[in-house]
Order: sequence, then structure tokens, then C-alpha cells
Amino acid sequence: MSIEQAACLKKGRGRPKQFDRDIALDKALEMFWRHGYEATSMADLVDATGAKAPTLYAEFGNKEGLFRAAVERYVSKFAEKGKALLTRPGSTITEAVERFFRAAAATFTDKSLPSGCFIICTSAALSASSEDVAELLRTRHHLQENTLREFLQVRQSQGELPTQTNIAALAKYLACTLQGMSVQARDGATHEDLDTIVSTMMTVWPELIRVGADFTLIAALEA
Amino acid sequence: MSIEQAACLKKGRGRPKQFDRDIALDKALEMFWRHGYEATSMADLVDATGAKAPTLYAEFGNKEGLFRAAVERYVSKFAEKGKALLTRPGSTITEAVERFFRAAAATFTDKSLPSGCFIICTSAALSASSEDVAELLRTRHHLQENTLREFLQVRQSQGELPTQTNIAALAKYLACTLQGMSVQARDGATHEDLDTIVSTMMTVWPELIRVGADFTLIAALEA
Repeated sequence: MSIEQAACLKKGRGRPKQFDRDIALDKALEMFWRHGYEATSMADLVDATGAKAPTLYAEFGNKEGLFRAAVERYVSKFAEKGKALLTRPGSTITEAVERFFRAAAATFTDKSLPSGCFIICTSAALSASSEDVAELLRTRHHLQENTLREFLQVRQSQGELPTQTNIAALAKYLACTLQGMSVQARDGATHEDLDTIVSTMMTVWPELIRVGADFTLIAALEA
Repeated sequence: MSIEQAACLKKGRGRPKQFDRDIALDKALEMFWRHGYEATSMADLVDATGAKAPTLYAEFGNKEGLFRAAVERYVSKFAEKGKALLTRPGSTITEAVERFFRAAAATFTDKSLPSGCFIICTSAALSASSEDVAELLRTRHHLQENTLREFLQVRQSQGELPTQTNIAALAKYLACTLQGMSVQARDGATHEDLDTIVSTMMTVWPELIRVGADFTLIAALEA
């Protein structure tokens, strides 16, 4: 029996309200996703989760602990699904990339969820005072780019990408597009708008995967 | 004489402190840029600007008024410079686009300023409770995409883009890249990192400007 269940039974007012950690986490995740880390207070989280403050403190320690748990919840619910789309067997690199980006377009504009990517939205407005949280989000962000880079590396080793393709640059470019799509979703873009962005990217994909190792060959214009 | 100057003289404590609206706005802009709209309080703004609370209220009405003024300040200091780079006479479309994106890469990672684009960073974490502010930022956001679209339209009418190029899709794609670059900057990307993204984009630019009008020809993969 959890502390909350025990506390409820002890109080004996009406039926004991069971504390469902996952449901509470989903509610907390939604609050953080909509409002950001700093603008969300423990009072907001108590309201949103329907749990009692002592329960939240007992389960998660503090706001930061609850936020960390919400990040893990998001990663396991959404980010890992994206990774699975990239690594599904039997797809060409082009199919896998398009499927991954189309799924992101759908998730970012899913009307049952806040818009955009939780990690991207939340990290955009963090202040220096939340350095630990910012570091956590940076790690998660880089995880996304790392996932893309590892995927591209595997495909390159399997001969699906030219050997001279700059994998790091391509992964960064793809991550940048994904992040831009998240911003657009937050800004009111529709599923169709994001699909247009993916279509544009897929149109230039055959050239994109030839992105060379030496950018110094491309003379930067004098501003 | 401003209200603040008059008030200072009246009080007569030491030298009258002149209220410099532009300096105060720059400080307020930096606060909002770093922390976002909701996480910045009037108390923070009083601290940051060094002005007295009644002065800020007299000049700007409330936090939202100060924020609106900060947005205008940002637009006139940074966004209009970007627009000027696009419309500078004597450049090809390719030169103008590259110059615009390289300047954004430099501004987004300028160490004397908060990272990324102020408009993009701030809007990412707005809650539904700040609907008026969100609407203001959406308008500003769209202004950026509109600027790019108008630029492309002019260049198309001058014969620099194929007539079948989907200007709206291309403008949205460019805006998405710019927004992704802002997120990356916020996330710790260096000037060089962002320049690599621009170089990648410029590598596929010759294909990008051929982005066709009919995306339905590109069959979306079944997810």
C-alpha cells in the first residue's frame, strides 16, 4: 500500500482515493508541456493531478523531481516510439526518415496533446536559475540528435549513404528541421502545414544525403 | 520632462535619476528573452531596469504593455536588419538567402545577447492564460514567414525562381529552418554549428527552389 492510500484510509473521509502515479504524471506532464517548467508551480501541479501536496512531495521529492519523472514519462511514451520507427526492419533509409518525420508531424499537432515537442517547448524558455533542469533537457535534446546520427551511421555502414556523407552535419540538419516543426506547431501550424515541410524535405532528400564532408569548399558570403 | 524625472525632482533625494526608456526597454527585453513572459515578474523587471515600479507602470501600463514595447524594440533592432539583408540591391536570390541565414546564425549565438531568437524562444513556453501575448507573438512569427514569402515572390516575378516553385511551401520550410536554428542556439549550439546547418541548406538550395506546386505527387508512406 502506498503512503497516499494509507493516509487516505487513516483519514477515513469517504472512499479512499487511490493515487495513480502514471495518471498523475500524465497530468503533470501536460501542465509542464503547456506552461513550461518555471511558470508551473507546485500548487498548479496539485490542482492538475488531483493529488494532495504531501503525496506529490512523498512520491517525487519536489517540483524538479516531478519534472524529471515527467520527462522520463514523455520519453517512454513518445520519443521511444519515434526511435522504433527509424529502426523498424525492412525499410529503406528514405522510408524510415519519411515515416519518422510524418509521425512527428502528427504527434506535434495531435489535438489531444499540447502542441509541439515537450522537450523542445520546455527547454526554450528555461532561465539560468534552472540550470539542473536545463542540463537534463539538453541531454534529452542531444539524445534525439544522437538517435538520428546513430541511425544514419548504421545506414551508411550498410551502404545506403555515400561514404563521404557528413553524418554529423546531416543529423544536425534533421534535428534542426524537427525542432523548427515543433516551433511551428506551437505557433498554430496544422498537421497539413507540417506535412508540407516534410514533403519539401523529402524532395531534397536525395541531395541532402550527399552533403559532403568539407563545407569549407562552400565559400561563406561576406555579409 | 518625463513623469519619472518630475517625480525624482519632487522627491529631491540626491541627483534626479533620469529614466532612459530605451535602456530600460533593452534590460526588460533581455529579461523576457532569457526567462520568458510568464516567468518574468514586474519585480524582476524593476530589478533589471533599475527603474521604479511606478515609473514602469506609468510608461508601459503593466507587464503586458512592457512586453509589447520590448517586442517592438526587438523587431526594430534585429528583425528589420534581417529584412534589409534580404532586400539589399544587387544580390542574387542565393546570395541574399545565404547572407540572411548566416546573419541569423551570428545573432542567435552572439555572446552579448541571450541565445536564439527572442520571438521564437518566448512564444515556445506561453500558456493559454497569456492568449493576448501569444497572439502578438504569433503575428510577429508570421511576419517573419511573410517577409520570406514576399522576398521569394519578388524574386520569382523577376525570373530568379521557376514559375512552378511553391513559394508558400518554400517560405514555410525556410522559416522552419530558422526556428530550428533558434532552438539549437538555445540548446547550446555554437556559431559554427549553426553555420553548418546553413551550409547544408545552401548545398540543397538549387533543388529546394524547384520545390513543386503539387505535393500530392509525393505519396506519403503508410506509417
